[in-house]
Amino acid sequence: MVRFRLTPRDGAFFDLLAKTAVEVVRGTEILTRMLGSDRTQRLELAEQLRAAENAADETTHEFLRRLNQTFVTPFDRDDLYHLASSLDDCMDDIEEAGDLIVLYDIGTLPPGVDKQVSVLSRCAELTAEAMPRLASLDGLRDYWVEINGLENQADRAYRHLLADLFRDEPDPISVIKLKGVIDALESAADSFEHLANGIETIALKES
Amino acid sequence: MVRFRLTPRDGAFFDLLAKTAVEVVRGTEILTRMLGSDRTQRLELAEQLRAAENAADETTHEFLRRLNQTFVTPFDRDDLYHLASSLDDCMDDIEEAGDLIVLYDIGTLPPGVDKQVSVLSRCAELTAEAMPRLASLDGLRDYWVEINGLENQADRAYRHLLADLFRDEPDPISVIKLKGVIDALESAADSFEHLANGIETIALKES
Amino acid sequence: MVRFRLTPRDGAFFDLLAKTAVEVVRGTEILTRMLGSDRTQRLELAEQLRAAENAADETTHEFLRRLNQTFVTPFDRDDLYHLASSLDDCMDDIEEAGDLIVLYDIGTLPPGVDKQVSVLSRCAELTAEAMPRLASLDGLRDYWVEINGLENQADRAYRHLLADLFRDEPDPISVIKLKGVIDALESAADSFEHLANGIETIALKES
Repeated sequence: MVRFRLTPRDGAFFDLLAKTAVEVVRGTEILTRMLGSDRTQRLELAEQLRAAENAADETTHEFLRRLNQTFVTPFDRDDLYHLASSLDDCMDDIEEAGDLIVLYDIGTLPPGVDKQVSVLSRCAELTAEAMPRLASLDGLRDYWVEINGLENQADRAYRHLLADLFRDEPDPISVIKLKGVIDALESAADSFEHLANGIETIALKES
Repeated sequence: MVRFRLTPRDGAFFDLLAKTAVEVVRGTEILTRMLGSDRTQRLELAEQLRAAENAADETTHEFLRRLNQTFVTPFDRDDLYHLASSLDDCMDDIEEAGDLIVLYDIGTLPPGVDKQVSVLSRCAELTAEAMPRLASLDGLRDYWVEINGLENQADRAYRHLLADLFRDEPDPISVIKLKGVIDALESAADSFEHLANGIETIALKES
Repeated sequence: MVRFRLTPRDGAFFDLLAKTAVEVVRGTEILTRMLGSDRTQRLELAEQLRAAENAADETTHEFLRRLNQTFVTPFDRDDLYHLASSLDDCMDDIEEAGDLIVLYDIGTLPPGVDKQVSVLSRCAELTAEAMPRLASLDGLRDYWVEINGLENQADRAYRHLLADLFRDEPDPISVIKLKGVIDALESAADSFEHLANGIETIALKES
């Protein structure tokens, strides 16, 4: 196998992470549209969500192929691996949430879910803006600080949703279904924070 | 501590993974028998399942002991560590599923569960066949391709089971119990895929 | 950035892990008090639990900052990283359990929960005693052996609680709530075992 040295110009790793992040943004846009849609539209949107996730998987695989065939990498190999898999987790959680909404055939979602999803949309945008800046590691501090703040907002929204759900929803089956959806959304927020923490760690190490 | 160099003949790491995988196959066989058994037989089968898991744990610990005492390893130390722990996850998920069937004192399981378990059986066989081939890294491509295909089948079976469960099962307690079992089976399929992806990554890196 | 060599006297890493472990002990003490408290007292105790978790987070971040700025580390960088994050998982699981008790507005907890929490208290004490011994790696064997034994006790307590819950609790909503709490406690026991296994691995490697 040809092992080639990375030239400074080879930003391929960051380009691929950026491409993946664009699909994550697309995923949160689809999720947002899902909230206001009826069952028929949601089936169609779930298809689009699956397509976004497949596109993200492809760029992630291309990233890993490159990583495995590159001798000199811009950061530690493990750090790059963790970046890619953390970003992949964000996409998976978003897709699972949309998936469960359709699978459980949920009618209207509690209002608090809008807050969860709008926080995720902002996390996705910030992440997509941050990926290209990994090449220089400049100006990433605001990114991880803001993500941590958003994760706290997501956490509060989640806890209120959970308390309201158990207080107000008399039907246990509905409780199980809605808990499944808001758990998936909460886990997406955690994944964005996990990715941001990984980037903070890299930045500190490389600085 | 004596640190000894691996000689080409030292295939001990792969022998231990292969031995562990044989217990995983045994686990899926026991799980298959569980489906058609009554409560009394299941108690006995759950014991056998625990025995298989203990045997797998022992070979895994022997693997880790060797890994920690070996200076030159056939692949990256971390890769070997992840192989062993991914294989351990497969066994744990299988044991948990069987365990919950008994713990929840479940009567007959929905038909779709047979499909989940038959896919897991095939995953276990393929995995057991693949382990000895790690030494040469030859002919592993079919393995990881087929595992990925099986995981997709498992995923479809899981999603149908979940949708049917929430549509057809009126008793919430039964929903919680059955969801616990099919979630554990789905997570076993994910673990087999995770292991296969890890092996693909190693093969690409070492090739 | 100034990269400084660790002198033998620099036990800062272990001091920080020890400080974190002290907060984990505090967390289990608060959890224990929660069991016998009424709803109002629990709100106050949940605050204290959150404070303990924040204190643990700070020492963990200080640990990671140091790790990233230290050129020569006492153990493999990855091993130290995993130690800190495993210890962080223990704290998170404990805080989540206490959090759910308040969030779900649970009345009296089933007696078996006392057993779960008392095992966690012992795990926390043993862990706090073990951290300072990491510097010499002496006398840690008893620690990981006893933790493994405690995890088995926790597992049995958990399985009995689960079986009793599904047999005796007629209200599905209460089942979901209580299952959430005992699952979090079980996952805390797993985290203590995971940390102990990591330390065993390091001890074997460094010995």
